[in-house]
Amino acid sequence: MTTPTIPTEQEVLGWFDSLSNWGRWGDDDELGTLNLITDAKRKQAAGLVSEGITVTCSRLLVPEIAPDVTSIPPLHYMVNTGETAPSEGGGGSSDFLGVSYHGLTITHLDSLCHQFWNGKMYNGKAASLVTSAEKATAGAIDNAKNGVITRGVLLDIAAVKGKDWLDAGEPVFTADLEAAEEAQGVRVTEGDALLIRLGWYKRRQEVGAPSAAEGRPGLHAETLPWLRERGVSIGACDASWDVAPSEYPYVGLPIHKVGIVGMGLWLIDAANFDELAPICRRLNRWEFMFTVAPLRWHNATGSPVNPLATF
Amino acid sequence: MTTPTIPTEQEVLGWFDSLSNWGRWGDDDELGTLNLITDAKRKQAAGLVSEGITVTCSRLLVPEIAPDVTSIPPLHYMVNTGETAPSEGGGGSSDFLGVSYHGLTITHLDSLCHQFWNGKMYNGKAASLVTSAEKATAGAIDNAKNGVITRGVLLDIAAVKGKDWLDAGEPVFTADLEAAEEAQGVRVTEGDALLIRLGWYKRRQEVGAPSAAEGRPGLHAETLPWLRERGVSIGACDASWDVAPSEYPYVGLPIHKVGIVGMGLWLIDAANFDELAPICRRLNRWEFMFTVAPLRWHNATGSPVNPLATF
Amino acid sequence: MTTPTIPTEQEVLGWFDSLSNWGRWGDDDELGTLNLITDAKRKQAAGLVSEGITVTCSRLLVPEIAPDVTSIPPLHYMVNTGETAPSEGGGGSSDFLGVSYHGLTITHLDSLCHQFWNGKMYNGKAASLVTSAEKATAGAIDNAKNGVITRGVLLDIAAVKGKDWLDAGEPVFTADLEAAEEAQGVRVTEGDALLIRLGWYKRRQEVGAPSAAEGRPGLHAETLPWLRERGVSIGACDASWDVAPSEYPYVGLPIHKVGIVGMGLWLIDAANFDELAPICRRLNRWEFMFTVAPLRWHNATGSPVNPLATF
Amino acid sequence: MTTPTIPTEQEVLGWFDSLSNWGRWGDDDELGTLNLITDAKRKQAAGLVSEGITVTCSRLLVPEIAPDVTSIPPLHYMVNTGETAPSEGGGGSSDFLGVSYHGLTITHLDSLCHQFWNGKMYNGKAASLVTSAEKATAGAIDNAKNGVITRGVLLDIAAVKGKDWLDAGEPVFTADLEAAEEAQGVRVTEGDALLIRLGWYKRRQEVGAPSAAEGRPGLHAETLPWLRERGVSIGACDASWDVAPSEYPYVGLPIHKVGIVGMGLWLIDAANFDELAPICRRLNRWEFMFTVAPLRWHNATGSPVNPLATF
Repeated sequence: MTTPTIPTEQEVLGWFDSLSNWGRWGDDDELGTLNLITDAKRKQAAGLVSEGITVTCSRLLVPEIAPDVTSIPPLHYMVNTGETAPSEGGGGSSDFLGVSYHGLTITHLDSLCHQFWNGKMYNGKAASLVTSAEKATAGAIDNAKNGVITRGVLLDIAAVKGKDWLDAGEPVFTADLEAAEEAQGVRVTEGDALLIRLGWYKRRQEVGAPSAAEGRPGLHAETLPWLRERGVSIGACDASWDVAPSEYPYVGLPIHKVGIVGMGLWLIDAANFDELAPICRRLNRWEFMFTVAPLRWHNATGSPVNPLATF
Repeated sequence: MTTPTIPTEQEVLGWFDSLSNWGRWGDDDELGTLNLITDAKRKQAAGLVSEGITVTCSRLLVPEIAPDVTSIPPLHYMVNTGETAPSEGGGGSSDFLGVSYHGLTITHLDSLCHQFWNGKMYNGKAASLVTSAEKATAGAIDNAKNGVITRGVLLDIAAVKGKDWLDAGEPVFTADLEAAEEAQGVRVTEGDALLIRLGWYKRRQEVGAPSAAEGRPGLHAETLPWLRERGVSIGACDASWDVAPSEYPYVGLPIHKVGIVGMGLWLIDAANFDELAPICRRLNRWEFMFTVAPLRWHNATGSPVNPLATF
Repeated sequence: MTTPTIPTEQEVLGWFDSLSNWGRWGDDDELGTLNLITDAKRKQAAGLVSEGITVTCSRLLVPEIAPDVTSIPPLHYMVNTGETAPSEGGGGSSDFLGVSYHGLTITHLDSLCHQFWNGKMYNGKAASLVTSAEKATAGAIDNAKNGVITRGVLLDIAAVKGKDWLDAGEPVFTADLEAAEEAQGVRVTEGDALLIRLGWYKRRQEVGAPSAAEGRPGLHAETLPWLRERGVSIGACDASWDVAPSEYPYVGLPIHKVGIVGMGLWLIDAANFDELAPICRRLNRWEFMFTVAPLRWHNATGSPVNPLATF
Repeated sequence: MTTPTIPTEQEVLGWFDSLSNWGRWGDDDELGTLNLITDAKRKQAAGLVSEGITVTCSRLLVPEIAPDVTSIPPLHYMVNTGETAPSEGGGGSSDFLGVSYHGLTITHLDSLCHQFWNGKMYNGKAASLVTSAEKATAGAIDNAKNGVITRGVLLDIAAVKGKDWLDAGEPVFTADLEAAEEAQGVRVTEGDALLIRLGWYKRRQEVGAPSAAEGRPGLHAETLPWLRERGVSIGACDASWDVAPSEYPYVGLPIHKVGIVGMGLWLIDAANFDELAPICRRLNRWEFMFTVAPLRWHNATGSPVNPLATF
């Protein structure tokens, strides 16, 4: 593997323009890279279903405080239980769910208003369109109301590197992505969903929740041109995409910033590929139909999701 | 159309046994009718994708008090907004979502612990396994963690009846279901998702939210044997399945009670087929790939969902 | 009773200046009219306790949707219950409370950041100091952390007018306040808490919750100079202070706007004097020790409270 | 100081009976030790106000995750902010507060249904009266709707022991309480509020939040007969009353269990006396009027409170 060329922060800043998709699909576009998923692509995706096997790509959503919970833990309260359900006749149970889903622990899809740069979100809309009173009046999750169905490709970076998991702060470079493509015999093409497995959820399950402050593995800014060139429509990672700590103090999270704001790239953080990867290995198949169905929450900045892979 | 034979309440009570699926898929089964969705069925479903068009079957989830909100309205609070995002450098928005999703307004999937009869849920598990402290330790939504992908069939009862919508209290009988099958040239087969459009969401959008106390249209208890015989794996209705008011004072909601508890039937309430139906009409095609991806919320009694139909 | 002189909206706007307390207690003051409660005043208040009787001035806080709930209803969920408490050994119950307390139904104290005029709150602090991320970094409730103990005076306007309750839209003028003082043989003096009973909670209990849209009785803008002149330190009303609908379209709620922003006046809305008033009548005593102990919620814009009157 | 006689767990269990107040104030009583606060006592309390100084006994309630948060941290979301308040005309701010207040961090008052023993709460009411659907239908906080006003006595155990704070697991015995009485020249009498300062909040402020698992200082079970004999009506502690870890594995928390269930004793946990103690020292006065005004939350198991001391 060749030594990656690390871009300067100035170069990364330049990518807000040179990798930009602003205006590419019209001045009012709020779909961003989901535009790359054509009807033909969806047909191609469905055509990949030959076994009829389906599997979740979501973590279990557990209401608990843990070192990687950066906001509040999920709330789960029962409205009705079966503790005193009568032994004759009817009864039922119901519950209340509350979730501050952005962060490091809940599998969620960011909508394009989730990130701003220079006071603007993707396609030049004003950040000020997201308010406490009206919520996200632009770039909201309901733009993806019809869901995402496309060809998914899993790159199991941890496996290709021969590791159980990458460490906090360990970056993934373009060369790593291409090495995984080659090792697995698969290639990411325009409109695809790119799934990146770093083993980070496996580490959490086996070693315990990492402290948010320690950081996490993730893609290096250097991969941004490759993500743009390959035409990734949506990405899902079992960490949070950006390697942390960041070596770019001003940009902070280059994948989130350049990707979401500049490219209109849809990102799923905190996914789980520990049920998917064994199937891929068993079938020796790293492509599948990938489905995401975000909640249609009015003016929300994203949604917790349960992405599915179907073979 | 022949006059339907209305079962007595005693007969409906008998269906808890005669239509039961308890033990059918093992003593510990918590999947219920989802067992009817085989790998072959999923392949068949994917094979229906010939246009590459996908469309939501969810209502827009709006945090507001309305006459059909029976619990609390959804909560939506911003954690960060763009109101003061800097004109240079980064920013972002995030939010908190809270939802008591069972009820009449939010498109949601009931898991099999949502209903009890005689102190038990589906397959004989004790209702007391659902507690305020531990939540749903049986029959929870995560049993459906790998999602639902199957052939979907929409029966547009309102359209077949030549109405904009059925009225509160207006029942749908087996004969109506079969008349719709015939009119549309489609047939519900084992493992299918059955989607029932009554026009109830259209009524809400056009006339305003109906009072919960007024009731709603829905399937009559009389359809239960048909649902069992046809092998419906999952149902979705744009009202709440059971016609209300109920003419069965003891059972209350026969479809929910016999269906969920006795048959292990998975039900989606408060769906929206107003974007799906025009596509079906245009393509003259009432079958499609149907996808549901419930949140993997630990020990929850269901999940808000955004079901998708793909052609 | 003389005909009140109704101020024009221009005159009311002038009161932001002429009745202003900005700078009166220092440039950084966030206590506003609570400065009027001196140690001597607190001693006087305690000196009024001759019977040892204490009574609530709060409504019961009930988690329910009602026509006068303008935000969300309170949330109340059990974390642990006694439904399955063991018959031998220990157990316990606990719960979660959630409340959007501003509005018309929950007895609450507004802190001085609750209202803005021309982009500023009381004493000239920028409204922009209240943000979604940091909450109320100025004018927050914790300024009142040591609570309010002062002489309270109840003016039972409804009783003096010989009514069960005033109607929606019915204004209270200075002459009404003074007529009540005279009828009851009491006088509001500097530093006092002024309690205004309009019978509005009694109406809710007897007739049902009024629609928020119908409006409510309350003080007319014309009383503002009197409130300033008398040196009211804190006010509590069983409606919401301002008569509604407002006849001042630009100012909207003159008592809240001129009172809180201009005068730094602390206001309690949606109180309950139906337990207090009978005691006053029985003892023929309309003054008492009045106590308010707001929660010390960091950077909150107010607090639900249970004000107490002690005789 | 004499060596305390440590009771066996069997002896502590016996105190559920021998120290019981069940039936003492009637078979339906839900006020428990608040019955000890007579009108005369309230008059006495008010008579202690000679300086007119009032001070909070509450911690600042901060929405944050910390090692001593055992449930969820408080929720605080803005509904409206001043970030974009117009420079001309009106605006306002409001917020949502959510709190699971039982635990170690929030100053709160337990109502008598908070603890059960042998399936019963204070005065023999069934624990099963507290349900997820109806909440606390017995022993709820609204029993204290008229608030608590009584003579308060602060025993500054940490100061008398010459420590900044007691350590986790460090017990307080009767002899310590009496030593503090003697050192401070004060005596706890029937109907008094007993405030116990262990320095535990000072430790949190200076050293950081302690882990809940480490335990905390608190009263030893051995003090229970003394609390009963002295006629304490309500207690407030800057830790959580019971020393932890407990040396009584079956009873667990003897003060909470025997105190609340057996004696009907009202307890405030997680108070703050770091603003009160310096005033006591300066005035050399350890008695004062003590006021608690719990929220009137229907069927709640307690309430966050801001207790006040007035001199």
